[in-house]
Amino acid sequence: MQQALIQNAAIKKLIESYKTIWSLNHVSALAFWDMNTYMPLEGAKGRGEALGKIALLTQQAFLDKSFIDLLSAAKSQHSLNEYEQAVIRLLQRSLKFYQALPPDFIEEFVRVTSEAHFSWKAAKEQSNFSLFEPHLQKIVELTRKKASYLGYKEHPYDALLDEYEEELTTKEVEQYFSELKEPLIALLKKIRSSRNYKEEHALENLDYNVENMKRLTNQLLATLHYNMDHLRVDVAPHPFSTTIGVGDTRITTRYEGKDFARSYSSTIHEYGHALYDLQTHEDLYYTPISGGSSLIIHESQSRFWENFIGKSLEFIHALYPELVQMQPELKNYTPEQIHHYFNIVKPSLIRTEADEVTYHLHVLIRFEIEKALIDNKVEVKDLPALWNKKYKEYLGITPPNDSEGILQDVHWSQGSIGYFPTYSLGTALSAIWKSHLEKELGPISALVSSKAGLKQIQDWLKEHIHQYGSTHTFGDLLRKKSSEPFSSKYLLDYLTDKYTTIYSL
Amino acid sequence: MQQALIQNAAIKKLIESYKTIWSLNHVSALAFWDMNTYMPLEGAKGRGEALGKIALLTQQAFLDKSFIDLLSAAKSQHSLNEYEQAVIRLLQRSLKFYQALPPDFIEEFVRVTSEAHFSWKAAKEQSNFSLFEPHLQKIVELTRKKASYLGYKEHPYDALLDEYEEELTTKEVEQYFSELKEPLIALLKKIRSSRNYKEEHALENLDYNVENMKRLTNQLLATLHYNMDHLRVDVAPHPFSTTIGVGDTRITTRYEGKDFARSYSSTIHEYGHALYDLQTHEDLYYTPISGGSSLIIHESQSRFWENFIGKSLEFIHALYPELVQMQPELKNYTPEQIHHYFNIVKPSLIRTEADEVTYHLHVLIRFEIEKALIDNKVEVKDLPALWNKKYKEYLGITPPNDSEGILQDVHWSQGSIGYFPTYSLGTALSAIWKSHLEKELGPISALVSSKAGLKQIQDWLKEHIHQYGSTHTFGDLLRKKSSEPFSSKYLLDYLTDKYTTIYSL
Repeated sequence: MQQALIQNAAIKKLIESYKTIWSLNHVSALAFWDMNTYMPLEGAKGRGEALGKIALLTQQAFLDKSFIDLLSAAKSQHSLNEYEQAVIRLLQRSLKFYQALPPDFIEEFVRVTSEAHFSWKAAKEQSNFSLFEPHLQKIVELTRKKASYLGYKEHPYDALLDEYEEELTTKEVEQYFSELKEPLIALLKKIRSSRNYKEEHALENLDYNVENMKRLTNQLLATLHYNMDHLRVDVAPHPFSTTIGVGDTRITTRYEGKDFARSYSSTIHEYGHALYDLQTHEDLYYTPISGGSSLIIHESQSRFWENFIGKSLEFIHALYPELVQMQPELKNYTPEQIHHYFNIVKPSLIRTEADEVTYHLHVLIRFEIEKALIDNKVEVKDLPALWNKKYKEYLGITPPNDSEGILQDVHWSQGSIGYFPTYSLGTALSAIWKSHLEKELGPISALVSSKAGLKQIQDWLKEHIHQYGSTHTFGDLLRKKSSEPFSSKYLLDYLTDKYTTIYSL
Repeated sequence: MQQALIQNAAIKKLIESYKTIWSLNHVSALAFWDMNTYMPLEGAKGRGEALGKIALLTQQAFLDKSFIDLLSAAKSQHSLNEYEQAVIRLLQRSLKFYQALPPDFIEEFVRVTSEAHFSWKAAKEQSNFSLFEPHLQKIVELTRKKASYLGYKEHPYDALLDEYEEELTTKEVEQYFSELKEPLIALLKKIRSSRNYKEEHALENLDYNVENMKRLTNQLLATLHYNMDHLRVDVAPHPFSTTIGVGDTRITTRYEGKDFARSYSSTIHEYGHALYDLQTHEDLYYTPISGGSSLIIHESQSRFWENFIGKSLEFIHALYPELVQMQPELKNYTPEQIHHYFNIVKPSLIRTEADEVTYHLHVLIRFEIEKALIDNKVEVKDLPALWNKKYKEYLGITPPNDSEGILQDVHWSQGSIGYFPTYSLGTALSAIWKSHLEKELGPISALVSSKAGLKQIQDWLKEHIHQYGSTHTFGDLLRKKSSEPFSSKYLLDYLTDKYTTIYSL
């Protein structure tokens, strides 16, 4: 029999006490999922009230003297293993967060963002920024306050980054983008001047039947995954993945009825997130290190599945019969043509639909805007103009309206400022994992056509990443595989290789 | 401008403090809804853990010294109005409950019942009582304990009844059934010997298309209701209604693909529950008296809509085009024939599908079994045999298997023992409301064919019942309309009239 990962009695007692917090997280995650899927429209205000109080109870549970005593007792233990140390590290991190923020602030933040979510939805639907503006104004003010409560060494934005990615700094993100930006723009230029470059692809305009596409989603998940009793998929305007409890991870996707690659990619992307949480070692269930808390690691998993598997020629070949069943017109296209459609590179307006090359420029724009907002260098009312200016500058295009511009992402309405950079850094990390995995298992392309091959990938990811949950920071996890520091090098090499082939550069 | 219903400052402070409990109830209701609709199968254990902790937090919030102090301060206030008095009455009732039950007991009860729910489901699917037996054994033991913790004057079952219906006693329920039983059996006998009596109706065996029936459900709700932004419908094996928060009430229905009256009746039944909660006066939102807590009043609303509106010839006439659209074969049946199908009386196995006459015998059987269980006069292992014996005795039929017998209802798996009697008493109360409403507005049958007529009914129910939420016990609410004591007389008169016509007795 294997020894349990958590051995120390003081840590076990701490985890037992943590179950109250775990339970509050459980119901909050459920309430968030529901708010984005099934909640009736008029439930918004009450949901905001409830989530505000639940956030307060969470804070109270962290600040409870008996919990703090258990945490102190655990800290004084000797020779803890890596899991036990991680339990302490993550609980201390949360405790510090809850000690820094006043209860009134926490309740207000949750209430304001719960309500803002619905004003954002309405503003987006009507493409009218002014409906969302006062809510965003409030959120930005609260976020500035949050940064000062949380504290930082160099830049207030550091405090926000750290919330999503432990220890990540503004300087590191700036450094990362400074290496990535020029080569990406150069690659984009090369692609745009290739003979194979096209502004339009017929499949982008193909209308699809939503019911059939839903069946394809289910088929796709049944192909990718090995157990549908702990995973489900629903519909949400902005797809996401969430782990609600043990054996209960949920993804969402969307169906616009057009350009089916978007729905397809969303599903596989979110599946990559889900798999990370689902493959945590079972000894870590109900502990603070179950599932992933590093958003960079998380995104490295979603982008891994989305780009290396979902968009690979070999997987499309394997799924071809199901694709044709979904939409009979697809029989007029070869798998190679569908593969090309899935991998079109061109400047576009919507981040979540962007190709792998321009994607990072979308993230860079948000990073620059957020930094300026937190630095008081731009006002909320001027955001639509700033947004459009940056899109013109980096991508050469201008959104025709706010819905496709400043209002496109859900994040700010949820108070998630400091989150976007992890999308790009996570993608860069996915390319590093790819290189390691391929050194050990051979090319991913040779594995994606069969259940057995997919299982090899899942097992590799489990062994090197998933089983640990949040035991390690992304830097520490990477160092377990290699002494090479994190960089965008693997991402750039991968993109250059891939698109040199596709566009015959 | 109208004066607010809650005026007293001490009561307002108490309600503000109650918001934490309100929020815990909100997330618990959501978790329960989710468990019965969308939760992945393997989420059961984690959900049980979380709900156990949330129940403990609810208890802690009630027992919190500052909350008890606010409640005491509120109690010492003079000249409180009926709403303010009700806030105190209901909070004291809950406080008494939480003071009586030890925290360990509460957590265990929630955890055991959350897990039992899934063993019940499996047992029902496989028609195998032994899968559920150990869980039920545990639940019965815990329930006996609960009765002794809660205390009672005459019978331990009184303590259980009181949880669902304030102050209801075993003696009262016995008295009620003793008046009802013989006349019902006599009426049933008369119907069964009528020329029009049939054991089978062709429509019972008509297969329907589930997608079309779902459309009919939506149509039906759109016909009945005036605002679909605060109400939604989903699918659950055992239909229920729940109010999760302000502006967020949900019902569920089911689709077996056969005998569409079952799905149709479930939907209208649950709508009746939902309407009660939705029509509470808005000043009572977020207070303990929002929505209905008396199950007898609640059931009087669901049965009102199910029986007096949904099963009326006039409403079926109005809905006839939609019914035919749902299932084209229905054009071969007149509205009168469909009305007859909706109102067939015959002994049957499943309570929720029983006709209005035999329904009460189903409830009586459960009441007698529960009483015996709590009295230690029967053991859990002997329940299937006892069940079958009583069905033979009261209804002359024997379930062919446990799935259609002892395992049919969800209640015991949820630890709801003492709940069933409210189904019958609530139905009797619905007949009393009918008589009052008709005295004031004329026959219901003349109102159900138009939106305006339905609105008159909704407004009447709001004025006399819904607006108060849980302000009054069912006895007090009834006394506002009449000095006549509660009895089954109106129910018996209504049933005799209705079926004398339908079966030409």
